[in-house]
Amino acid sequence: MSAPIFLLSDFGLRDSYVAQMKAVLYAGTPPGTAFIDITHDVAPGDVLEGAFHLFAAAPHLPAGSVVLAVVDPGVGTDRRAVAVRSGGLTFAGPDNGLFGLLPVDLAWELPPPPSGSSRTFHGRDLFAPSAARLATDPGWTRSLRGVDPDSLMRSIEAPSCSTDGSMQATVMHVDRFGNVILWLRPEEAGAVGEHLLIMPDGSRHRLSTAGSYSGGEGLLLLEGSLGLMEIALDGASAGWFLGVSRGDRLGLVPRP
Amino acid sequence: MSAPIFLLSDFGLRDSYVAQMKAVLYAGTPPGTAFIDITHDVAPGDVLEGAFHLFAAAPHLPAGSVVLAVVDPGVGTDRRAVAVRSGGLTFAGPDNGLFGLLPVDLAWELPPPPSGSSRTFHGRDLFAPSAARLATDPGWTRSLRGVDPDSLMRSIEAPSCSTDGSMQATVMHVDRFGNVILWLRPEEAGAVGEHLLIMPDGSRHRLSTAGSYSGGEGLLLLEGSLGLMEIALDGASAGWFLGVSRGDRLGLVPRP
Amino acid sequence: MSAPIFLLSDFGLRDSYVAQMKAVLYAGTPPGTAFIDITHDVAPGDVLEGAFHLFAAAPHLPAGSVVLAVVDPGVGTDRRAVAVRSGGLTFAGPDNGLFGLLPVDLAWELPPPPSGSSRTFHGRDLFAPSAARLATDPGWTRSLRGVDPDSLMRSIEAPSCSTDGSMQATVMHVDRFGNVILWLRPEEAGAVGEHLLIMPDGSRHRLSTAGSYSGGEGLLLLEGSLGLMEIALDGASAGWFLGVSRGDRLGLVPRP
Repeated sequence: MSAPIFLLSDFGLRDSYVAQMKAVLYAGTPPGTAFIDITHDVAPGDVLEGAFHLFAAAPHLPAGSVVLAVVDPGVGTDRRAVAVRSGGLTFAGPDNGLFGLLPVDLAWELPPPPSGSSRTFHGRDLFAPSAARLATDPGWTRSLRGVDPDSLMRSIEAPSCSTDGSMQATVMHVDRFGNVILWLRPEEAGAVGEHLLIMPDGSRHRLSTAGSYSGGEGLLLLEGSLGLMEIALDGASAGWFLGVSRGDRLGLVPRP
Repeated sequence: MSAPIFLLSDFGLRDSYVAQMKAVLYAGTPPGTAFIDITHDVAPGDVLEGAFHLFAAAPHLPAGSVVLAVVDPGVGTDRRAVAVRSGGLTFAGPDNGLFGLLPVDLAWELPPPPSGSSRTFHGRDLFAPSAARLATDPGWTRSLRGVDPDSLMRSIEAPSCSTDGSMQATVMHVDRFGNVILWLRPEEAGAVGEHLLIMPDGSRHRLSTAGSYSGGEGLLLLEGSLGLMEIALDGASAGWFLGVSRGDRLGLVPRP
Repeated sequence: MSAPIFLLSDFGLRDSYVAQMKAVLYAGTPPGTAFIDITHDVAPGDVLEGAFHLFAAAPHLPAGSVVLAVVDPGVGTDRRAVAVRSGGLTFAGPDNGLFGLLPVDLAWELPPPPSGSSRTFHGRDLFAPSAARLATDPGWTRSLRGVDPDSLMRSIEAPSCSTDGSMQATVMHVDRFGNVILWLRPEEAGAVGEHLLIMPDGSRHRLSTAGSYSGGEGLLLLEGSLGLMEIALDGASAGWFLGVSRGDRLGLVPRP
């Protein structure tokens, strides 16, 4: 028996890189082991996007799962390769901020890849064999060198701040439906009701609160399925309408 | 043992939504259960496109399979959540026309999601657990409230009509190869031989009948692998050449 | 027990064609059989791109695996359908050059599809059932008609040539990261050190050799993870910068 292995990368699905990793996972696990893609469409080298998708998916993965996560622009340099325990899950990947949005309980340094293996594809030659090992032999970490969780790279996390009732929130992601996912938890969003959205250029939009994407009029502010606040537009893309993308900071002012 | 579960949605593969659904399926089924994607690239909210892909795939799925189908622009409103039995397969998804091109034998209303679950992601919180239950416990439907199949939403199905030998057929899909798939069965297409294609703007093209995509000259009319008539162009995109898309109505006149 | 089955096609993931093939594989193999995608995003009908991805992935697939490979613009014509043994793997697909970059040990002709099956979708009706059979009953090939490996279609393979220390190398692929993968092995690339890159229009660029994608300055020449030389640009797309695509021939001159 083996734990299921979830995969995230920026390799895309056009090349065979993901299949090469899965072939290694297949060889290192018993028949019937589940390999489930989180996504491979992280923008090339975009560590923060990868970190966001791990943050979004993690609470919904079965306890005991292993996650192979490779967004690794520094492959072949001296960035550390780590295994990370967070909330009952074990992640394998580079220590470059990819795990920086997760609460980390324990961490270990992974052994270097066998000599003669590729210097440019640690996903296949280092992280995939490690993930297979972690999935089939959970006690393996006892033989690894521990890493202080506080020494792991953090993600460039933009905190929300609140002054006199108004808030600044960072756009963390615009999903396929155009929902603008804010780095803002419902308990931070404060009073339910109408809000004023203040764009970086100073322009303003009215937001109504809603419980679902449907039926509201104009821009909606609602609690999304990831436990973060989202701005949505029924039947259209709020992200496109507002012209925002990851990293933009938006103001939110509750209206009485 | 569990039936295999096929998945269709409009969630795309860039976000982690599909993985979140599969994590729920994994948790609710025995190890080794197969999760097979039909497609997740249905255009956001395009129920008719989803219905078409279900129609196309259904005849080829193994008897007893379960299909988790989520194109659900009305999530969180009062649209019904249903399980549908069609030709030996069981589908779980919203009652919004998504199953409207399938012949339905039996249908049931699914129980509401547990309180506290998301109002915006029933794919994960309602349909995925239901699909897992249907795959592992086929008798579960006996405890569900039956739904009259005739009360299910139909798809906006454009019937083909035939007057004095000429036909009107609706473009149902243009596939990746540019094949224009018509909502027209071979037995409706009538006499084999040359046809005249009449475009919405009145312009005309000659169609030769063919048995395969290769070797014909100019536009071809042939029976495609889905059991529907297709217009194709050897080595090029007929859809692009003709400038058509889903919903366009084309005239077809057999030539003696 | 069944060997794992890897899949490659030009069907894309928007239509249900891949799912229809997997449904056939599922029906023809025992529960728990692994179906792993290499890629389905080969450009429609681009046999050489398919051949390249098979060449890239093959060395990393577990011995005994079966590969279902369908880039088949000649479907329905009299091109042969074959099974091919290469390096411990067995491939099923059309004999049109798709296996033309692999060293072939043995080959067999596949039986025709059952009468009444589609003339336009041999992936589902001929190659998928054959792949399932090959995966579960390796002795099946003994009942097939042997094919002379030398009679198989070769890929349009552009050999590298070397005259007085300079080389011509063909661009085989530009991957998602913009790495320009040359049809040139490290042992052919000759002396490590600075090279001059000579573009088809005569313009020149300096290339430094590097061991990884990171940290170098300007254009890098390095051994990639596929065992071929690559031109890369740290943090940017070399393919886009140079404006090259598959089939372009580039000159390389070592500098003392």
